Amino acid sequence: MSEQSSHKTWRTKLHEIIYEADTPAGKLFDIILLIAILASILLVMLESIASFDEKYHTILNISEWVITILFSIEYIVRIISVNKPLKYILSFYGIIDLLSTIPKYISLFLAGTHALVALRALRLLRVFRILKLARYLGASNQLANAIKASRAKIAVFLFAVLIAAVIFGTIMYLVEGEEHGFSNIPKSVYWCIVTLTTVGFGDIAPETPLGQFIATLIMILGYGIIAVPTGIVSAEYTKASGDKEGKYSDEEHEHIKDLQLNTQCCVNCLAETHQDGAEFCHKCGCKLHHD
Amino acid sequence: MSEQSSHKTWRTKLHEIIYEADTPAGKLFDIILLIAILASILLVMLESIASFDEKYHTILNISEWVITILFSIEYIVRIISVNKPLKYILSFYGIIDLLSTIPKYISLFLAGTHALVALRALRLLRVFRILKLARYLGASNQLANAIKASRAKIAVFLFAVLIAAVIFGTIMYLVEGEEHGFSNIPKSVYWCIVTLTTVGFGDIAPETPLGQFIATLIMILGYGIIAVPTGIVSAEYTKASGDKEGKYSDEEHEHIKDLQLNTQCCVNCLAETHQDGAEFCHKCGCKLHHD
Amino acid sequence: MSEQSSHKTWRTKLHEIIYEADTPAGKLFDIILLIAILASILLVMLESIASFDEKYHTILNISEWVITILFSIEYIVRIISVNKPLKYILSFYGIIDLLSTIPKYISLFLAGTHALVALRALRLLRVFRILKLARYLGASNQLANAIKASRAKIAVFLFAVLIAAVIFGTIMYLVEGEEHGFSNIPKSVYWCIVTLTTVGFGDIAPETPLGQFIATLIMILGYGIIAVPTGIVSAEYTKASGDKEGKYSDEEHEHIKDLQLNTQCCVNCLAETHQDGAEFCHKCGCKLHHD
Amino acid sequence: MSEQSSHKTWRTKLHEIIYEADTPAGKLFDIILLIAILASILLVMLESIASFDEKYHTILNISEWVITILFSIEYIVRIISVNKPLKYILSFYGIIDLLSTIPKYISLFLAGTHALVALRALRLLRVFRILKLARYLGASNQLANAIKASRAKIAVFLFAVLIAAVIFGTIMYLVEGEEHGFSNIPKSVYWCIVTLTTVGFGDIAPETPLGQFIATLIMILGYGIIAVPTGIVSAEYTKASGDKEGKYSDEEHEHIKDLQLNTQCCVNCLAETHQDGAEFCHKCGCKLHHD
Repeated sequence: MSEQSSHKTWRTKLHEIIYEADTPAGKLFDIILLIAILASILLVMLESIASFDEKYHTILNISEWVITILFSIEYIVRIISVNKPLKYILSFYGIIDLLSTIPKYISLFLAGTHALVALRALRLLRVFRILKLARYLGASNQLANAIKASRAKIAVFLFAVLIAAVIFGTIMYLVEGEEHGFSNIPKSVYWCIVTLTTVGFGDIAPETPLGQFIATLIMILGYGIIAVPTGIVSAEYTKASGDKEGKYSDEEHEHIKDLQLNTQCCVNCLAETHQDGAEFCHKCGCKLHHD
Repeated sequence: MSEQSSHKTWRTKLHEIIYEADTPAGKLFDIILLIAILASILLVMLESIASFDEKYHTILNISEWVITILFSIEYIVRIISVNKPLKYILSFYGIIDLLSTIPKYISLFLAGTHALVALRALRLLRVFRILKLARYLGASNQLANAIKASRAKIAVFLFAVLIAAVIFGTIMYLVEGEEHGFSNIPKSVYWCIVTLTTVGFGDIAPETPLGQFIATLIMILGYGIIAVPTGIVSAEYTKASGDKEGKYSDEEHEHIKDLQLNTQCCVNCLAETHQDGAEFCHKCGCKLHHD
Repeated sequence: MSEQSSHKTWRTKLHEIIYEADTPAGKLFDIILLIAILASILLVMLESIASFDEKYHTILNISEWVITILFSIEYIVRIISVNKPLKYILSFYGIIDLLSTIPKYISLFLAGTHALVALRALRLLRVFRILKLARYLGASNQLANAIKASRAKIAVFLFAVLIAAVIFGTIMYLVEGEEHGFSNIPKSVYWCIVTLTTVGFGDIAPETPLGQFIATLIMILGYGIIAVPTGIVSAEYTKASGDKEGKYSDEEHEHIKDLQLNTQCCVNCLAETHQDGAEFCHKCGCKLHHD
Repeated sequence: MSEQSSHKTWRTKLHEIIYEADTPAGKLFDIILLIAILASILLVMLESIASFDEKYHTILNISEWVITILFSIEYIVRIISVNKPLKYILSFYGIIDLLSTIPKYISLFLAGTHALVALRALRLLRVFRILKLARYLGASNQLANAIKASRAKIAVFLFAVLIAAVIFGTIMYLVEGEEHGFSNIPKSVYWCIVTLTTVGFGDIAPETPLGQFIATLIMILGYGIIAVPTGIVSAEYTKASGDKEGKYSDEEHEHIKDLQLNTQCCVNCLAETHQDGAEFCHKCGCKLHHD
């Protein structure tokens, strides 16, 4: 696009490949990373199947080490290629990227038979690798806005549901009692939420006629209130998409689209959502790179 | 705001702290009360867990007495600080505030081994403390209006669902019979509501081919009608939020916001939702206090 | 309202009491009938509880005979008080009114121990008494219109759901097989609908990893498509309430309200929804009675 | 409509009968085909019921051969009556039409006791006959458009649900462990989707207090997010039906209706949705036939 692309440093190029997806190299890197993340999730899953782990333990272990080392290299390169590494390290994705590599290293020192339970918790952290996927979901701003706008109302609503669950849970504990599985109030509240949300596992179920009658009331209540969050999101979403169409002119509309498609990311401050023809970062004034 | 705040009586000050949340002292009181209510709910829950109650019975009992006495003091102070105590005592929150303290006192006289079952019912009443929480949820008027507007329609709808449940429940009782768990019509109706609301515990499930076929019809019916209350609330909510935006000008809109943020409460008649600069109660003409 | 009310015949008066609810006598009759219907439903329910039926068999039996005879008298009076009795007998409510009385009489001739199973089917018919309730639900036209407007689309949708259920049901039958409860395709299709509608009894559940994977797909599909009928009804309902407000002027609107409140019913042809000041039936030209 | 209908060839006539439903013969053919497809599905279902298959094996087998041969003839006639047979063979319905006949023929060569498992898979394919039904559902374009418009957003949403299921599934695996049925991560993820979609089989259920607490969070999350796809479809559908009414004039509206009712299908390229008075195919210019 301009002449400065010729005298780009290797760091700028690395930044472009790793953080952006506009160039062919950047796109390829993102796709490979996506496959690696999915493969690592699959490995964790397969390892958890006892019969499979017994047979292929060595292969699974080696594959995991390979992916862990690749993720570690990626993490280091990400730190190197930004001007303010601390900003990346302390960012949401920086922490997740770190959490997705260290558990495997810690498992080296905490190995042995006793560390098995500790390893379980470490495994848990490794799953956060998956959150990397979210980065590739792209912007579905309209949906996000609808959820954000109805967040407060849904919180109020969920709080009301929780109060109802506590009250009905206590009533059911008194009515059904320990002998029918409602052994304490927390368990009764758990059952009540299972019922209100229409999940209905059936691991606990009322057996006395009065208990079944109250359960009927809870279910009809749950059925009635399932309508509320749906109605809120639906209305907010209709409004959000209506506003968008009404407020912006065609020119502005196109501009919004460009913003969403552009994956440029400032080398200095990691700010995103730059305008398409922008030469400088809108947040720190640092020069952006073009091809 | 004006000079009369200097010669406020202690009663006016108490009223301001307890009933309103505009002053720092009032805010602090509300937060402490909220924590106390949550703690008391937690205590009731922990007490219901047999293994926990055995170990820490004395601590739980003492903690509950502390909270009960605190709630009693709060109740008395609330009565003292209003001009018309009877109005508070007979109000919704007045009754709940009383119900959340007396069961513990009654348990003193009704103690003994035989009163155990009675105590259960008393415990139930103590849970009404939770309803105090509702006071702190604030006004989500728009949501409340949408629900209020669709209340009648949802009632008609729920009535139709109940009729369907009774008819299908009787049919299932005749088809499946006692040997498959459908031991009487009320139980069959209970199962039918469990199915129509898509809860599906599975404690009772049809076993004959004909019964399973009818169950399929009930489920598809339930699936189809789950759409109705959702559609009603959704439409009413869209209308409610549309009306609000259309009907009020910007100035009025701001005024509405102020009303919601203002927690002033008349000393005489407990009326709420006063205008921000109001000097007198809009209901009884009694002077409001300002800082 | 006019002078002809003075020389009303007893038949016209009966018609007014039984078919209409505008006069105090008519209202009283409807309320008594409603209570009688609810009582008869309660009786059928109580009779089905074995332990209850044993104890109070005689009382239940007598009560049922009383209600059956009352319903029979009501049925005969309804026939007498109309000009064209056949029109009533062959109408929807005429058939239901008959079906809610005859089973008890038939049980006299078919009594004995062998007739028990036959009686079950007769009981089933007696439940249709409940449908009488529908008459008292009044007009919730807006809701009815929304459902009517989306009826065709929901039918197409439900048909698509059925096809999906048949295909996935067959796949699950092949994958899971008889040993895991999927003993034949109809049962498998039943399970599939249980899953698609998010009821999930758990009486049959996939046990093979492949079966659980396909079940996951079915559930996500069910979760995704639960949105469709809801969206349709919601949109149609919004449109219906929007149209109503837009199309009719205030005057017309009031007129519609009157129509709904008026319960006049032609003595000759049983036509309903007459205008408030109407002197003659809009369908057969027969004179309407006023007070 | 014009004079060329008199010198139609038999091939054009066949095409008209088989592919279109405008003539009485075409309508009759479609109805017979629909009944044949439904009968064949019923046969497959009945065959899968062991007790039924034992009794009526011969009748079921003969009936299936009759239907298979009829479908084969139909398939051949369909190929003959089009100008470009390959286009039909490779089309969606062409492949389904083939798949619904060959499994029965292959079962001849692969018969024997060992082929039983293979036959199962063949049976699976035979079910694709059902997809033929879709052809007769007609155009519910508005609904299809709403789903198409919200497809991308629902995909993003479902992807987010899957990530949540993987994370929560792993947490539940670590918390509950093998002894409570959460024997490996894939199974745990399966349970998590069962819970998030509010299906709730209950074949696996959390038993530890911590597990039940996390399950509660998952259920409330599931309850909250059930609103999102519903809101999207609802909003898109409202927009779709709004656009349709706004954009098109009455004249155009009528024209759209005609397009939907017309079942003309080009003899040459199988293109559909021709205008009512059209003489030539809008895609390949080939002459259309009229009566």
